[in-house]
Amino acid sequence: MPAPTPAVAAPSIEETVTRLRRREAGALARALTAVERRAPGVDDLLARLHPDTGRAHVLGVTGPAGSGKSTLVTRLTQQYRARGRTVAVLAVDPSSTYSGGAILGDRIRMSDLSGDAGVYIRSLATRGAMGGLSRAVLDGITVLDAAGFDAVVLETVGVGQAEVDVISVAHTVLVVSVPGLGDDVQAIKAGLLEIADVHVVNKADRPGADQTYAELRDMLRLSHRRPRQWNVPIVRTTSTRGEGVAELADECDTHLAWLDEHGGRAERERRNAATRVRWAAEELVLDRLRPGHGAFDAHVDAVVARTIDPRAAAAELVHHL
Amino acid sequence: MPAPTPAVAAPSIEETVTRLRRREAGALARALTAVERRAPGVDDLLARLHPDTGRAHVLGVTGPAGSGKSTLVTRLTQQYRARGRTVAVLAVDPSSTYSGGAILGDRIRMSDLSGDAGVYIRSLATRGAMGGLSRAVLDGITVLDAAGFDAVVLETVGVGQAEVDVISVAHTVLVVSVPGLGDDVQAIKAGLLEIADVHVVNKADRPGADQTYAELRDMLRLSHRRPRQWNVPIVRTTSTRGEGVAELADECDTHLAWLDEHGGRAERERRNAATRVRWAAEELVLDRLRPGHGAFDAHVDAVVARTIDPRAAAAELVHHL
Repeated sequence: MPAPTPAVAAPSIEETVTRLRRREAGALARALTAVERRAPGVDDLLARLHPDTGRAHVLGVTGPAGSGKSTLVTRLTQQYRARGRTVAVLAVDPSSTYSGGAILGDRIRMSDLSGDAGVYIRSLATRGAMGGLSRAVLDGITVLDAAGFDAVVLETVGVGQAEVDVISVAHTVLVVSVPGLGDDVQAIKAGLLEIADVHVVNKADRPGADQTYAELRDMLRLSHRRPRQWNVPIVRTTSTRGEGVAELADECDTHLAWLDEHGGRAERERRNAATRVRWAAEELVLDRLRPGHGAFDAHVDAVVARTIDPRAAAAELVHHL
Repeated sequence: MPAPTPAVAAPSIEETVTRLRRREAGALARALTAVERRAPGVDDLLARLHPDTGRAHVLGVTGPAGSGKSTLVTRLTQQYRARGRTVAVLAVDPSSTYSGGAILGDRIRMSDLSGDAGVYIRSLATRGAMGGLSRAVLDGITVLDAAGFDAVVLETVGVGQAEVDVISVAHTVLVVSVPGLGDDVQAIKAGLLEIADVHVVNKADRPGADQTYAELRDMLRLSHRRPRQWNVPIVRTTSTRGEGVAELADECDTHLAWLDEHGGRAERERRNAATRVRWAAEELVLDRLRPGHGAFDAHVDAVVARTIDPRAAAAELVHHL
């Protein structure tokens, strides 16, 4: 039985928007829970927030479990804060059905980042289909972007196509490797190689870091690179001590500047907008084509009676939406 | 690069329909490959075949790898043939990207069933999303049902939600267990328990068969059964020797008769018709909402420019389809 969905706006949408713009933690939490659960009214809020979006630098951080992503994201957040920027972290967990609170990584991070109003951390999960999670991530970015965070960091475990789909909505994708995780890492790296904008060799003080670096460099050399393409850097970090994190932040800035210069940012925005429109259309159509809704039942009856075929029935229903 | 798609009808749709009704292997193979690849023209063929459907008894057979499903399906097919019925087998392989030919199981079966014009065996796979496979299965049933086969048997490895979705389009779902496969089987059984219409304990001559039978019986007792519900039987088979297969065929017949008597067949037909209509509508909409098509690009531009939000853009586009 689903938990009752909280109201998006306690007093009104305008009040919620005002509180979101102040980046009030309570308002952010309620809005993201509404996004996660597709609560009634969330579409109106997202429509209202849409004009205020497009300012945040969206970063995606992915890599295998044990690569120290959470610590790295914490350090990168501190680095951004030191540069005067506000940061929101969205920890995406496709495998978890847990919703609406802090995961272990968040609690650890909280101790380093708590009490700073310029930082907001939240984990996001949705029950059911992967498509639901991708949608929640895009809507979550809308909320955090409109709230005025300078950077929105998506963090996910990069193991499958679903995670690649989620992370590829970012402007800048960071793929984290570590020395000594074995062959699995190679497979993950191969799958993520083409979406990485910045490679990170974390735990660079460990034995084998040079080899991991060299392997990545060779893989990048072997990949087919077109002219005028972004030259993917490899940054070594030891996130537990904060080493290399300033350089990493610099590379992320350089990448965003490069995107702006070469039209890449507009291209990604366009692709994401197209995805949002297609998803919304799908939802709209499927929401109306269900039992008890308009002519749907009569058309299904006709399909069962063999007086019309399913595609012709669908065409008629879509035509009369 | 996709392989060139074969023409659905060499001379005409009517000629194809005539050949399908004669259950010509070549025509069946071409039509199912067209279904698998979503070849141009396949929708017209399916629309033409739709009025001829609704006669076949659709059976779903699922169970873990190593449960002897293929041999069981072969024996059940022989049993149906002995009763004068024609049988089509659709081996569904969600994990395989292999398409259009015989898989290992089919080759083994072929030696037992080859040369019989009343039997048709085919494996079905689609590249890409699971939704594509479910759709191909429904369309494949349309082809085989319209071709006049008395029984259409779907065979799949029951491990995940996707396979459950595929198999649940059948009128009668057989879940195959075997003794001694360990804890994994329990998990599979638990997931499949609610969709099983007939339980089969295969390899019933093995040690532990009594225990497997008892476990299934206890699980069925514990499940919440409503009044007037089908009383799920457990049939013991040793398919390598054909033992228990006649009883299994009887139970399948009894189940279909029970469905007819209690409106269950109409209910499943209705559910499948609704699924077909929704899928067709989704396809129709997404096919038109893509780059270079009508007003799509202009609306995406407007979303990027923030003059409209994605859901409002989708509503306008759907309205003008």
